[in-house]
Amino acid sequence: MWNSRKVGILGGGQLGRMLVESANRLNIQCNVLDAENSPAKQISSHDDHVTGSFKEREAVRELAKSCDVVTAEIEHVDTYALEEIASQVRIEPSWQAIRTIQNKYNQKEHLRKYGIPMAEHRELAENTPEALAKVGEELGYPLMLKSKTMAYDGRGNFHVRGAHDIPEALEFLKGRPLYAEKWAYFKMELAVMAVKTKDEVLSYPTVETVQEDSICKLVYAPARNVSDVINRKAQELARKAVSAFEGKGVFGVEMFLLEDDSLLLCEIASRIHNSGHYTIEGCPMSQFEAHIRAILDLPIPPQSLQIRQPSIMLNIIGGSAPDTHLKAAEAALSIPNASIHLYSKGAAKPGRKMGHVTVTAPTMHEAESHIQPLIDVVDDIRSQRSDVRSKPQKSGVSKPAPSVAVIMGSDSDLKTLVPGLKLLRDYFGVEPDVEITSAHRTPTYMAEYSANAAARGIKVIIAAAGGAAHLPGMSAAHTALPVIGVPVKGSSLDGVDSLYSIVQMPRGVPVATVGINNSINAALLAARILGAFDPAIQRKVEAYAESARAENMELKGTKLRELGWEKYFEQM
Amino acid sequence: MWNSRKVGILGGGQLGRMLVESANRLNIQCNVLDAENSPAKQISSHDDHVTGSFKEREAVRELAKSCDVVTAEIEHVDTYALEEIASQVRIEPSWQAIRTIQNKYNQKEHLRKYGIPMAEHRELAENTPEALAKVGEELGYPLMLKSKTMAYDGRGNFHVRGAHDIPEALEFLKGRPLYAEKWAYFKMELAVMAVKTKDEVLSYPTVETVQEDSICKLVYAPARNVSDVINRKAQELARKAVSAFEGKGVFGVEMFLLEDDSLLLCEIASRIHNSGHYTIEGCPMSQFEAHIRAILDLPIPPQSLQIRQPSIMLNIIGGSAPDTHLKAAEAALSIPNASIHLYSKGAAKPGRKMGHVTVTAPTMHEAESHIQPLIDVVDDIRSQRSDVRSKPQKSGVSKPAPSVAVIMGSDSDLKTLVPGLKLLRDYFGVEPDVEITSAHRTPTYMAEYSANAAARGIKVIIAAAGGAAHLPGMSAAHTALPVIGVPVKGSSLDGVDSLYSIVQMPRGVPVATVGINNSINAALLAARILGAFDPAIQRKVEAYAESARAENMELKGTKLRELGWEKYFEQM
Repeated sequence: MWNSRKVGILGGGQLGRMLVESANRLNIQCNVLDAENSPAKQISSHDDHVTGSFKEREAVRELAKSCDVVTAEIEHVDTYALEEIASQVRIEPSWQAIRTIQNKYNQKEHLRKYGIPMAEHRELAENTPEALAKVGEELGYPLMLKSKTMAYDGRGNFHVRGAHDIPEALEFLKGRPLYAEKWAYFKMELAVMAVKTKDEVLSYPTVETVQEDSICKLVYAPARNVSDVINRKAQELARKAVSAFEGKGVFGVEMFLLEDDSLLLCEIASRIHNSGHYTIEGCPMSQFEAHIRAILDLPIPPQSLQIRQPSIMLNIIGGSAPDTHLKAAEAALSIPNASIHLYSKGAAKPGRKMGHVTVTAPTMHEAESHIQPLIDVVDDIRSQRSDVRSKPQKSGVSKPAPSVAVIMGSDSDLKTLVPGLKLLRDYFGVEPDVEITSAHRTPTYMAEYSANAAARGIKVIIAAAGGAAHLPGMSAAHTALPVIGVPVKGSSLDGVDSLYSIVQMPRGVPVATVGINNSINAALLAARILGAFDPAIQRKVEAYAESARAENMELKGTKLRELGWEKYFEQM
Repeated sequence: MWNSRKVGILGGGQLGRMLVESANRLNIQCNVLDAENSPAKQISSHDDHVTGSFKEREAVRELAKSCDVVTAEIEHVDTYALEEIASQVRIEPSWQAIRTIQNKYNQKEHLRKYGIPMAEHRELAENTPEALAKVGEELGYPLMLKSKTMAYDGRGNFHVRGAHDIPEALEFLKGRPLYAEKWAYFKMELAVMAVKTKDEVLSYPTVETVQEDSICKLVYAPARNVSDVINRKAQELARKAVSAFEGKGVFGVEMFLLEDDSLLLCEIASRIHNSGHYTIEGCPMSQFEAHIRAILDLPIPPQSLQIRQPSIMLNIIGGSAPDTHLKAAEAALSIPNASIHLYSKGAAKPGRKMGHVTVTAPTMHEAESHIQPLIDVVDDIRSQRSDVRSKPQKSGVSKPAPSVAVIMGSDSDLKTLVPGLKLLRDYFGVEPDVEITSAHRTPTYMAEYSANAAARGIKVIIAAAGGAAHLPGMSAAHTALPVIGVPVKGSSLDGVDSLYSIVQMPRGVPVATVGINNSINAALLAARILGAFDPAIQRKVEAYAESARAENMELKGTKLRELGWEKYFEQM
């Protein structure tokens, strides 16, 4: 039967535990090689686990005996042990892939052959100041000095700001095989989880990662303020990079997004990855289940890797006391939409990953608002650690991407638009993106602005114009979004010229026209459109109508009945 | 620390297993009382479980010794054992609640005192044909004869169609304490999971349940084609019913929705429930975690109980062979967005609950489309069972609720609307709700129709009218939805009368006006509005523009260049 094969896992930490959690749901038995009562073993009660370390050859051999497939939750395993057992048992991904990836220098040399863009790097022939100074001259400063092996969560890296740092850098990384990387001036760190199956490489959407103390702090899924084009490009890069290795399973691919929107691969992990934890709640299928399915050749519907709702993952890190992290988790209990994952590692050391929390919400802005108080708690706990001195990585609630664009052909139209702009901002809490762009004076910019609006998250465009009012119709010709046209009354023809120019569009390009100079109605129409898909805004539209009713019925009606029409008119 | 208390669970079946799964994530230890290696124990490796049955007093006593709180995954526990240990350990919900609820007759007598609407019922004084015939005369036929105790998944119920069924019914339920219930002619079965905390009763949204062979087959969350009003009323009823019991935890409340939209309570379970399994994927917090939090007095943010995405849960039931259910699960591997939960109960008996599958999607229609092939597999497996003869409960994909309404004041406007209607249906795949309703001739119906549109799932209204065209504006005055107005050209004034009547709305009530007679643009505008929130529709809007461009540039342009303007004009 499809779920009767047994999976051996090298390592029973949190990643192994979450693999086991997924496998449990499919009734697939996982045999874990790690210390007794390690996190993964705690949720899998049977006698086939192996006690020992994933670095001990004998223990790996023993694990292989009881399994159909062996995989690893960590890349720092004994690949020579894997090579030895490869004739008895399937190993996914291949030991070759793990061996190449676990040495970061070899990993990069390998990827270079496949044309993967990366920061320039140099091997350090010997760990001497002269050798490093020579590399420093070639790559320039600052540079990143890295250990080729056993480097993770920032351990094994040193930031060399200039030649004066050379002695300290070599002392810090003493005795390790080293290479140097040119500094990447990135504006954002991205990550993609790729799933290598027997037939193809699939990918999850691109996420944004925020590192602190060189370990992952936050993951935003999908990446914020990143266009569809970059999201797709990053996924393509990840799939291409992962294709360069043999074997099946999930791979974590970390990337830099540079100022010019180009991408550099930062590094690959041959396993499920911290930047994919959000998939447990954020996607129909988690990275852990995708890994289990991939290594067992079970189907993975690509649609199940899409993001269900915007998600933010926050790591819970060990604090100054062995149970400080439980206080962060306790705070998380009160956060709306927060799913808590504690790893049951026992007493914490400062800086150790003890758990994570994922918040999902209909919009990223809402998710950010929910999680912010928890980030504050985590920052506070970190500030009390004696082993860190730097300030926390800033992570405030970002301004929500504007959902409404308001454009005008000339600043002389602004006066007409002000009542609508105020209504949107002050009553509906919708801060529009406001721009002057003319169909006649800036035709190219107008076209670009309109064509890019949807990708920027805009849902409705309001365009005001007078006279031979072309702006609303031309904007509509360059976008698939609904465009609302406000005819502005000019010095002649009483606005009828603008009205006809806006409303009488040819078949195929509609403009939603409102009354002459009526920016209030344009704003309300935009709110109605947003409100059709956002109950909070729809309730405000209803409240607006209700207050208009009350004003007419109760305020003005009562006054008229009290004063009589004649006095009422005198006071008008 | 908040997660150091130990939870004892009476029963280690699938419900216990899913409780343990939730508790594992919070690192809360659960001690399970059940047979060795029962499903719940398999995912919880420690030495504090108790081997035995939740009906054995000695075993319950032993469990109590190692726990801070005791709860139950089933109501058929020994409440006298619970009563005895109540002085040593907290029991949630209270043993009194469980004792009252486990006897369905007492449950209903109890709820009656709290004014909960239920089908009329009568106790059977003695199990004789005469006593049952007397009750039959009072309640009328058909009626439901029920065992007061040990009744679940349809076991302990007999459908008495008429007096002739009395002997068979009494034979079938021989030796059990009985009561009879008046037949409820319901149009739908609903369920609500309620969460009783130390301070209040919270509830999940109302779901629709489909029973087959008297056990739960499908759950649609939220209930399909049920208005917000009924959804809220059902939640209120559930919360009121659950308030009638002492103690904390999740309660499952099953209800009938009658033809007149009134609700009758069907029954309560004092525990997590099959109709709440969808919450694992469908909501930020599952019923299992909510139960753990409630009994430990941990916070439950009410927002976490909302539905994240429309969800459908399908039970995987034992088939004719001990592993037939695994074939259903195998089929589920290929279903997009499907999460599989197998309970690891070993070999299956026909009709036993062996697992479930939940599919989530952005719309209920999409979720239905995904899961239908799996329902077919499940129906096929059931048809091969020798113990069932009835046809499967039908569950086709329902027609999606219309997102666009098209209204006209008179059928004379239909001709103008046809091009737009065809475009919506044939090009965009959007089947609109089309209605004739006049602002002048059917003002009340027009108002009702517009006011109810949003609750029915309509996102945009297109309204066409000619002359003193009031329909678009009046419709807009009765709804918070965007209304698109199509001015229809009448016999005089060339349509300018209609245009002005529609576009020149007073401040406060906008109508999105398109060109005179231009129903194509009205349809495209509706598609643009839907497309702003539905990428599939937005891509079609883009494709429409692209084909118009291609037609102009390539087809007509090429022809003009080939023929020259004069010949081209001759052929027009």
